[in-house]
Amino acid sequence: MGAQPTDRTIAHTPYLRLISRGDWSFVQRTTGIGVVAIVAMTDDDCLILVEQYRPPVAGPVIELPAGIAGDLADYPLEELQSAARRELLEETGYEAAHLRELVTLASSAGLTDECVTLFFAEKLEKVGPGGGDESEDITVHTIPIASIDEWLTGAVRRGVLVDSRVYGALYLLQKERG
Amino acid sequence: MGAQPTDRTIAHTPYLRLISRGDWSFVQRTTGIGVVAIVAMTDDDCLILVEQYRPPVAGPVIELPAGIAGDLADYPLEELQSAARRELLEETGYEAAHLRELVTLASSAGLTDECVTLFFAEKLEKVGPGGGDESEDITVHTIPIASIDEWLTGAVRRGVLVDSRVYGALYLLQKERG
Repeated sequence: MGAQPTDRTIAHTPYLRLISRGDWSFVQRTTGIGVVAIVAMTDDDCLILVEQYRPPVAGPVIELPAGIAGDLADYPLEELQSAARRELLEETGYEAAHLRELVTLASSAGLTDECVTLFFAEKLEKVGPGGGDESEDITVHTIPIASIDEWLTGAVRRGVLVDSRVYGALYLLQKERG
Repeated sequence: MGAQPTDRTIAHTPYLRLISRGDWSFVQRTTGIGVVAIVAMTDDDCLILVEQYRPPVAGPVIELPAGIAGDLADYPLEELQSAARRELLEETGYEAAHLRELVTLASSAGLTDECVTLFFAEKLEKVGPGGGDESEDITVHTIPIASIDEWLTGAVRRGVLVDSRVYGALYLLQKERG
């Protein structure tokens, strides 16, 4: 979200920077120009979600397909929409004929400047295996929207966390579908 | 979410800790035992949201009333439900006769172990001014649920970010209301 005159970097890792701003502190990604997540609906009314192990919570998390825009060395000025298209394909194997920006949401503005831009994807075609890049191990779930509540409840019951954007996506999806 | 054998604290501030776990890094709150947020509905079908300036994004953010459980020196073992009741009162001035846990959601599990437990609050009574504690400057919004989409769109148009849990709350609210 840009730098401020009082910013001081307290520490950084290859991917994160801990910043002090006045009497506040927060974490910032060091790579990319934004984060995208995709609300992807198949023609037969299934929502596509991904599940992967997340070290910070030491367990699996159900999320929207998502990723960082502009974090590839040979494509630093990647637009958000291109990144959404790329991440959907990499993580799920689906190509979207229609892709449309919905809204940009703050992840947790007390502790990070991360914001995630959601895209609605439809007219999908399965063209690859999905599963993520070589550093990722992603399971793809294709869930009939009619049974999504039960499916999410079941995931929680088997000890899987759900990312907050999943529920946000369900609301936005209802509006898209009228 | 608990410590792992490989954890190493790279840096910390009074409120955050940057942790290295294997080849991953993430940020963790140093205070409290959990984070709560409240989906609060008045008897006349208004949703209560708060707006405050957030230094990490250098601007105002629309959020659910929320806060940290167990971050008060004289009450370290505060339960999540008690914290939800306290935060709702502090931030909005409302007391809830009914308060019920909904779900716990990961905030952004690639960069933090923060999870937020949402509570549904109803049968509200306005008993105080709200606005937060002495360190906070919170504006309370009471929005008819019938016009919430237009209201949020208007907020975005005037340059206010919306927190992702707000849209998640709208989905959960629809389920609560059948």
